[in-house]
Amino acid sequence: MDLKALQKLSYGMYIIGSHDGEKLNGQIANTVFQITSEPPTVAVSINKQNLTHDYILKGQAFSVSMLCQATPLPFIGGFGFKSGRDVDKMKDQNYRLGETGCPIFLDNTTAYLEAELIQHLDVGTHTIFVGKVVAAEVLTTDVCMTYDYYHQVKRGTTPKTAPSYLAKDKGG
Amino acid sequence: MDLKALQKLSYGMYIIGSHDGEKLNGQIANTVFQITSEPPTVAVSINKQNLTHDYILKGQAFSVSMLCQATPLPFIGGFGFKSGRDVDKMKDQNYRLGETGCPIFLDNTTAYLEAELIQHLDVGTHTIFVGKVVAAEVLTTDVCMTYDYYHQVKRGTTPKTAPSYLAKDKGG
Repeated sequence: MDLKALQKLSYGMYIIGSHDGEKLNGQIANTVFQITSEPPTVAVSINKQNLTHDYILKGQAFSVSMLCQATPLPFIGGFGFKSGRDVDKMKDQNYRLGETGCPIFLDNTTAYLEAELIQHLDVGTHTIFVGKVVAAEVLTTDVCMTYDYYHQVKRGTTPKTAPSYLAKDKGG
Repeated sequence: MDLKALQKLSYGMYIIGSHDGEKLNGQIANTVFQITSEPPTVAVSINKQNLTHDYILKGQAFSVSMLCQATPLPFIGGFGFKSGRDVDKMKDQNYRLGETGCPIFLDNTTAYLEAELIQHLDVGTHTIFVGKVVAAEVLTTDVCMTYDYYHQVKRGTTPKTAPSYLAKDKGG
């Protein structure tokens, strides 16, 4: 079995916004996808260790800010390799609160959506959250950043808590 | 709410292989994503109307053949806009049976995986199937086709049963 095949799956790059009351957080995720069109629902897979996991359950909602291709690597790093438990990731960020109470990140975002949690599925280390889209807006005509572009062109890396993490000894 | 924002989510293009005993089928899907890395699991969202939906439940497995960017549009059309109930989609296809009994499609495929069904979640018109990866192989170094490339460059269209279908009167 060659798990490098999994690296050929295509994804985008997103900031998942969440809240627990007035406490806000954002984390990078690549595993967002649309599930149904009637009504419009989306799913995201989040590691149980992440603060975002707690906040989505407490706030019963999440936002998806879709990053454009030109997003600088340090901007992504600020959301992707630190926990909101250790640092205030919202500091110095340009965001506004959406109708679900989740932050919508405005820098480098080409479109966003907000979803109210309707279901979740325990899949071991991660939970798949399914949400009904209640708000969505296109902000720019920019091309989206794909996960492949992030790896191949930007030379970005993947944290251990990501669904798509591949240990080096397995060929990653 | 501008549902065009949902079109900014990034996906690949895949053939989902499934079986019910010796009966085989393949359908196009764009919503495949990795869920966990320990163990490696993947999810796919399939419309309940599709024959593939029945076959995944009966065969308790599915395969994902990942299409390369150069895949011709008629090849995709042969899997994407017809039901395996009406036509034999396997006719004239170049495939082999994987260890799960699902067909692995060999033309235009850059990598594939096979997964044993471990969970599924009812999400209205669709079901999210979660499978444990039991086989995977990289076949070529070709770039993968993204859903965006399929739409923008290949001028491909989306059938009504797809999760990402957007009715014209909603801005699609």
